[in-house]
Amino acid sequence: MQRTQVAIVGAGPSGLLLGQLLAKSGIANVVIEQRSADYVLGRIRAGVLEQTCTDLLRAAGVHARMDAEGLPHDGVCLAFGGRLERIDLHGLTGKRVTVYGQTEVTRDLMDARRSAGLSTVYEADEVAVHDFLDGSAPRVSWLKDGQRHELQADFIAGCDGFHGVCRASVPAEKISLHEKVYPFGWLGLLSDTPPVHEELIYVHHERGFALCSQRSTTRSRYYVQCSLDDKVENWSDEAFWHELRLRLPAEVADKLVTGPSLEKSIAPLRSFVAEPLQFGRLFLVGDAGHIVPPTGAKGLNLAASDVGYLWQALEGFYAGRAGEVDHYSQRALARIWKAERFSWSMTTLLHKFPDNGTFGTKMQLAELDYLFSSQAAMTAVAENYVGLPM
Amino acid sequence: MQRTQVAIVGAGPSGLLLGQLLAKSGIANVVIEQRSADYVLGRIRAGVLEQTCTDLLRAAGVHARMDAEGLPHDGVCLAFGGRLERIDLHGLTGKRVTVYGQTEVTRDLMDARRSAGLSTVYEADEVAVHDFLDGSAPRVSWLKDGQRHELQADFIAGCDGFHGVCRASVPAEKISLHEKVYPFGWLGLLSDTPPVHEELIYVHHERGFALCSQRSTTRSRYYVQCSLDDKVENWSDEAFWHELRLRLPAEVADKLVTGPSLEKSIAPLRSFVAEPLQFGRLFLVGDAGHIVPPTGAKGLNLAASDVGYLWQALEGFYAGRAGEVDHYSQRALARIWKAERFSWSMTTLLHKFPDNGTFGTKMQLAELDYLFSSQAAMTAVAENYVGLPM
Repeated sequence: MQRTQVAIVGAGPSGLLLGQLLAKSGIANVVIEQRSADYVLGRIRAGVLEQTCTDLLRAAGVHARMDAEGLPHDGVCLAFGGRLERIDLHGLTGKRVTVYGQTEVTRDLMDARRSAGLSTVYEADEVAVHDFLDGSAPRVSWLKDGQRHELQADFIAGCDGFHGVCRASVPAEKISLHEKVYPFGWLGLLSDTPPVHEELIYVHHERGFALCSQRSTTRSRYYVQCSLDDKVENWSDEAFWHELRLRLPAEVADKLVTGPSLEKSIAPLRSFVAEPLQFGRLFLVGDAGHIVPPTGAKGLNLAASDVGYLWQALEGFYAGRAGEVDHYSQRALARIWKAERFSWSMTTLLHKFPDNGTFGTKMQLAELDYLFSSQAAMTAVAENYVGLPM
Repeated sequence: MQRTQVAIVGAGPSGLLLGQLLAKSGIANVVIEQRSADYVLGRIRAGVLEQTCTDLLRAAGVHARMDAEGLPHDGVCLAFGGRLERIDLHGLTGKRVTVYGQTEVTRDLMDARRSAGLSTVYEADEVAVHDFLDGSAPRVSWLKDGQRHELQADFIAGCDGFHGVCRASVPAEKISLHEKVYPFGWLGLLSDTPPVHEELIYVHHERGFALCSQRSTTRSRYYVQCSLDDKVENWSDEAFWHELRLRLPAEVADKLVTGPSLEKSIAPLRSFVAEPLQFGRLFLVGDAGHIVPPTGAKGLNLAASDVGYLWQALEGFYAGRAGEVDHYSQRALARIWKAERFSWSMTTLLHKFPDNGTFGTKMQLAELDYLFSSQAAMTAVAENYVGLPM
């Protein structure tokens, strides 16, 4: 049987970042991923990195391309009630965010892992985790090329996402699940067109939420709120651009450059937290333990801070401070709940809810109006947007 | 037919304060009230005054007893998850609030009106408002001692509360109503016992919200969240004190001094706004135009700022700036919506909602936890609690 110190299930950005950081600390690890590398790279995800996240990528030594190509953003815009307003993130908090696609982060981490010669198993079937609850000898098993493999480890890091096997392997009586499913989705379109605005614009509109986002100076990512039972086949590119334009302030709509979509998809919005995040020798990291709706761009950043806490905990363990691993769950969850709160509140503030009624809509507009009248309220949003300290 | 400049319908604190301020500016007014003076004084209401409100009482010359007996509060406390935390209102905003019962404010205004010899009609039956929409000669009519009276005025101020005749007299197609009714009520108990704490304590608890409030150093007002179909007859004093104690942090519960109730009542919680607040020569002021749930103590304060705006508008009118009265609605509503937002958000944050689920409760606790970790978030709550500027 193979042996390592930390078995990492999942080769998304959290698994790869954890692997890289552990390797820097001299802690052996193996990443096991059910999908192919190309499949992982094909997933279109978030694109706004907090400083906490870029600091960790830097600590992992995976920052050269991000530094060269990432776009520092000092502010973020909100449109509502015919107004276009800006939150001066840097002025209010001294911090900024970096626009750099999750796909690029994943690619950089993959390249770094390959260069470092670290062990990664892609296309592993029937991945399973064993004996983590009480044992000091947890194992991961999988099938590959028709053969069964087993890996023994000191710890298992479950970085395998919301639908992964790790959380599903925890006995139901040992885990509490807290969830909210929102009554709408986001229809997203990726295109090689210049972004309509140099910063992101979150839009509250009576037709529903919209977001003008970007991956680079030549690649844009736009979203419109859609109903949960909508299908991507119902949306031609033209229909998407038309609907987006209807939701933008005129001064923004006039500058919108449209083009053929590279990708179009509908994503549901969900808030979800599992408690705790440690089960004996198994840790849940990132989406395996919690989901935020994308409003506020916290998903990848929260996965990164989980990785940061777990890295510190495991470093402590191997440096002889065995108890530190038992603080992971509490430390990570304290930050997770705050980010869940922010993502939920931004989602609640900006979307059209079927049951809101006119009073609910008025509360959204009153909140937005108050926000831009109060330095304190704007600072509170800004400090959450750039990321609360670890 | 009698004649005056401003006919004020309702002798609650808004009507009386408006009358006093107008009189100071040399504008004649008559107050018409359906109830008796004793009935008006018997209503137990709010007890926390913003500086905006005390400034207006001062401008009206009705401040001697408030200055002598009112209690300045520099902070407010929140209890949740076993914690007792304080918001330093004065430190964060430079302002404070004054604890002085609405009943006392009303009594002082009544006394001042009587001393000034201003005309007030109590126990007026079948009060009706006429010809305000298009005419420049609106009238108020009523029955008193079996005789019909009519008062012609330049303007009518509708200070007659949520159930009053003024809003009800506006044609439905001219008014928009926005409303939210909360799925619970407040059971309140007034007693001549020393307050359990020198400042107010708002309590988030798994059994439901509670509030430790006060009217003076010897009179306390406590509340517990109850179900909407509950009856005050179901609650002995002992049952109330028992339930309250269960919801308080141990360190507070230990200091609670109980005693016989002077009054006990159940109030529903409602958010409500009518738009606009001007209909020709009729203005809606205070509860006649809007209701807030009591969480955050904005009801009387918002009525006072309405009065302030209307006073300024009418002063302008009689000084030859006729157009100023047409700005009342917009100016008042801008502040009203912000206070509605704050009252709704404090209510949402602190109460137990039947449909919240565990995620909803976790969001409340995360918000409270975040609040006391962020200077910006605490300042935002504090600036709303002491009252946004007019």
